[in-house]
Amino acid sequence: MKLMSFNLEGAEKYGVVDDSGKKVWDVLALAEAADKGVPATILAGIESGDQFYEIVQGLVKWGSQNGKEDCLHSFENIKWLAPIPRPGKNIMCVGKNYRDHAIEMGSEADIPEHIMVFTKSPTTVIGHEEFVDAHTDVTNELDYEGELALVIGKKGKNIPENEALDYIFGYTILNDVTARDLQKRHKQFFIGKSLDTTCPMGPWIVHRSEIDNPNGLAIQTKVNGEIRQDSNTKNFIFPTEEIISTLSRGMTLEPGDIIATGTPAGVGKGFTPPRMLKSGDQIEIKIEGIGKLHNTVN
Amino acid sequence: MKLMSFNLEGAEKYGVVDDSGKKVWDVLALAEAADKGVPATILAGIESGDQFYEIVQGLVKWGSQNGKEDCLHSFENIKWLAPIPRPGKNIMCVGKNYRDHAIEMGSEADIPEHIMVFTKSPTTVIGHEEFVDAHTDVTNELDYEGELALVIGKKGKNIPENEALDYIFGYTILNDVTARDLQKRHKQFFIGKSLDTTCPMGPWIVHRSEIDNPNGLAIQTKVNGEIRQDSNTKNFIFPTEEIISTLSRGMTLEPGDIIATGTPAGVGKGFTPPRMLKSGDQIEIKIEGIGKLHNTVN
Repeated sequence: MKLMSFNLEGAEKYGVVDDSGKKVWDVLALAEAADKGVPATILAGIESGDQFYEIVQGLVKWGSQNGKEDCLHSFENIKWLAPIPRPGKNIMCVGKNYRDHAIEMGSEADIPEHIMVFTKSPTTVIGHEEFVDAHTDVTNELDYEGELALVIGKKGKNIPENEALDYIFGYTILNDVTARDLQKRHKQFFIGKSLDTTCPMGPWIVHRSEIDNPNGLAIQTKVNGEIRQDSNTKNFIFPTEEIISTLSRGMTLEPGDIIATGTPAGVGKGFTPPRMLKSGDQIEIKIEGIGKLHNTVN
Repeated sequence: MKLMSFNLEGAEKYGVVDDSGKKVWDVLALAEAADKGVPATILAGIESGDQFYEIVQGLVKWGSQNGKEDCLHSFENIKWLAPIPRPGKNIMCVGKNYRDHAIEMGSEADIPEHIMVFTKSPTTVIGHEEFVDAHTDVTNELDYEGELALVIGKKGKNIPENEALDYIFGYTILNDVTARDLQKRHKQFFIGKSLDTTCPMGPWIVHRSEIDNPNGLAIQTKVNGEIRQDSNTKNFIFPTEEIISTLSRGMTLEPGDIIATGTPAGVGKGFTPPRMLKSGDQIEIKIEGIGKLHNTVN
């Protein structure tokens, strides 16, 4: 099941992608038609617990069996939003989680021995097909980073690695757009990672039941159709289970938390000379089993 | 006006410290008695705009003139909460903003040329008199950092320095409790700064109208009665206006955002040998014009 948020005629809604892959079942409209109560947003749904997934699945099944096509909207008629348009805390991002990326950013010495985590402000989040601001007044070095993102499904602390995957609600694609000059100038990464619109996320969340192993997914980033990043999450230095376990040591993870797992080699900064983003650039990130996230630089 | 949040008989409330400095006017109870509507929390109030301050002031004046002492609670009867118990994003913290602290953490070479910002998860926040967990299973080097914190009052981006103070709602005291071993091990500071209960904040927010210059306040931290940090915010490397202006370059600041301005010399790590926190330690941070924040390590 692919869960997405969208805007329809000015109202924020969410829904489930239908079998055609070109339309979305409007969960709030289905719930009204079926005279049932549902959480108002995906985030509220995840916070409400495991039954959310079953309730939504049930509504979509009811809608398709009962011909509720008035609750089915073509992608052409909606405005995409990030699945969680406004997270309740900063997005947590693992830095340098692929050996080849650590090396392209410096040298072998940059391969981390321990998980490195920084954050992006919730104000950075945009959806599929929304525009990334070029921020030319603030940075000359805007760069892309294609990443698998985890969405936490339940509260947990000191989570052992062998239970970690149970704490995931689902998976999405995230572009950790970075101002390299600010990242370097300010040392701690937050400022260079938190310009408005620099966290495209989506197009949807795929439920954990549909991804057998998050540490074995092909990941590819194209800029203007050219392949720049081409790897697989099997190359993680710190696999998904270790990320969740380490982050939760002494820190409570909560439903709706978003964790970006790091980017492979091939970022603009890794080329000689560097190939930074510019206005008009098209960025597409594809992850096996999830889909494609597409954004244009404004 | 000192605005504080508290828990009374299981309900989360907020209020204004009365002239005795030992009691709090319960704003929600006053509003009910006066048959007026008010925001449910301090955060919602700040988000509602400038009139919040006047509405609350008006209610307290009405209460004291009309003998509404049933809406006045002794501090002995309430449980303290952080003024904003659950911020809507991570707390932003300026690293190394006092020269003497930068030097004690390394050498002259550690004095930053540019503002360095990391974040603490909202799950770290606790109030005055709440307990800081010693986290002995995760860290052997828990340390204190007394800091002045700014609470943003209105939305802004690309804020010029000469307008920056207008974007502040008020000021509070923050203890940026840090696991030094984790801070060092994970390089980016987030993990070492985000253990649960490591962000005591309060006891209240003092409105900006009562602080002429945030860059000239005496700040002192005592551990078990012994003075450890003793400085003045006039020693900021990056003054308040520059912090706000720099952070807002390309990143929207929002009402309720919390910015910790950095800590002076005298942290536990700065002593030879280091003097880390241990169970039972009493930490008191005093800032001129605001008050005293007291917490015990559990």
